[in-house]
Amino acid sequence: MQERYDIAIIGTGPAGLSAALNAKIRNKSFILFGSNNLSPKIAKAPKINNFLGFPNMSGKEMGMAFREHINSMGIEITEERVNNIYSMGDYFALMVNDKMYEARAIIIATGVEFSKPIKGELEFLGRGVGYCATCDAPLYSGKDVVIVSSNEEGERDANYVSELAKRVYYVPLYNGEYRINSNIEVVKDRPMEIIGDDKVKKILLKSNKIDTDGVFLLKDAISPSQLVPGLLEIDGHIMVDNHMRTNLKGCFAAGDCVGKPYQYIKAAGEGNIASLSAVAYLDGR
Amino acid sequence: MQERYDIAIIGTGPAGLSAALNAKIRNKSFILFGSNNLSPKIAKAPKINNFLGFPNMSGKEMGMAFREHINSMGIEITEERVNNIYSMGDYFALMVNDKMYEARAIIIATGVEFSKPIKGELEFLGRGVGYCATCDAPLYSGKDVVIVSSNEEGERDANYVSELAKRVYYVPLYNGEYRINSNIEVVKDRPMEIIGDDKVKKILLKSNKIDTDGVFLLKDAISPSQLVPGLLEIDGHIMVDNHMRTNLKGCFAAGDCVGKPYQYIKAAGEGNIASLSAVAYLDGR
Repeated sequence: MQERYDIAIIGTGPAGLSAALNAKIRNKSFILFGSNNLSPKIAKAPKINNFLGFPNMSGKEMGMAFREHINSMGIEITEERVNNIYSMGDYFALMVNDKMYEARAIIIATGVEFSKPIKGELEFLGRGVGYCATCDAPLYSGKDVVIVSSNEEGERDANYVSELAKRVYYVPLYNGEYRINSNIEVVKDRPMEIIGDDKVKKILLKSNKIDTDGVFLLKDAISPSQLVPGLLEIDGHIMVDNHMRTNLKGCFAAGDCVGKPYQYIKAAGEGNIASLSAVAYLDGR
Repeated sequence: MQERYDIAIIGTGPAGLSAALNAKIRNKSFILFGSNNLSPKIAKAPKINNFLGFPNMSGKEMGMAFREHINSMGIEITEERVNNIYSMGDYFALMVNDKMYEARAIIIATGVEFSKPIKGELEFLGRGVGYCATCDAPLYSGKDVVIVSSNEEGERDANYVSELAKRVYYVPLYNGEYRINSNIEVVKDRPMEIIGDDKVKKILLKSNKIDTDGVFLLKDAISPSQLVPGLLEIDGHIMVDNHMRTNLKGCFAAGDCVGKPYQYIKAAGEGNIASLSAVAYLDGR
């Protein structure tokens, strides 16, 4: 039988990690979704001087300190992409590719996606453009699919889709060794525009174009209101009160996804608040 | 001529220190009021495990890390007690014993005073009971005064008052070497009740009573609405929005004084927000 966690935390930036520390200390059962690389933004930060107690740290050093902290508390990261979360009344159902998880409370700490939509992306959303390749893969049985991915998590998705689709093109927006099936064609390029009529017909890249039936854009963070239907946003961020409560009962949020400034110490502080609010919510039921 | 600072920060707990880091990085002129011991609560915390990046630290170690950080940035603490802050329209006037400072924006990070008022304290407030000994000292020329102090900052106040008053009793609520004038009588005891008719007549201690004309209660933190007249509170905390803005233009607040949870990382995160909001406010004028 499916275990129902007390808390599911989505995101492994400073907000999600800080939330996990408090869930652990307060003895709640929880699952932390994200990447073992933590937040890609952390590693890229050149110099951080306003995280109290850590003078003059590189983002990489700070990431290592965060990692050491969660390791020392025995906190593990579940490296899976959460595609959708549905409020079921007194619990939440988290759709994770082919699996489902359940949790009584959730903490959204998914950061912000800085990239603007490319031309045609919103126009063709749902008509050939999608953000979850594994969810929609069955629709592309015997067809051509382009998968644009911001990080290596897209490789597993591409492999899965390639078992069904006729042809899969993989456009990685990152460098690395691509661990993908040999029937997938890697195209190192930048997406510029998605073109079609009633449905997607092709994608223009900076120096290529590919005829395709579908385009999946796998981003570092997906829009919170796409992730959790019914979640209210304000000015492009999740609406929260001072206790990091969203408009949905049992759903809390913290970090960049709730608003500026986009700073580590602010995110970590909010993760603390969100987690303790979730604990109070669970204890009050 | 009196220098007018961009920002005055009141408090040297995690919220005030975090605010100072950001004011420094953003190149604003600022003054930080508080104690070189930082927050007395920090040193007393036995074990902290939810300040991301610092596993398993004692409060003392954490205080040392904070101190090292501000030292490395060349941030200095002005060890004076701010008694009152008045909004003057486009700046604030900070009354500090016999001096006055000016700042375009202020950040209140004074923590919370956990001690409840003693019996008679609120009843006789302004009729012999006060929170600022040096402000009201002239009223007690040739009279008897009891000074109850939570920390060693009260010693200077007692010395000052003893130059005017007939008799000064000093009731320290802390241990240490008391560096006070020889004409002051130290009474190690606990205040229980203040008694009088239209004015204060005496104070009852746990195992003493003292006839007196005035009682000063010098606490670790004074009530924010006493500190800044006109500042709105809600449920005993300063009312702030998500940007740590109070109801007064140019006045921001962070840390325990704006609400629970009372946690270091939450306070530090809010200090970051408050400081960047103050910077935006200054830059927008």
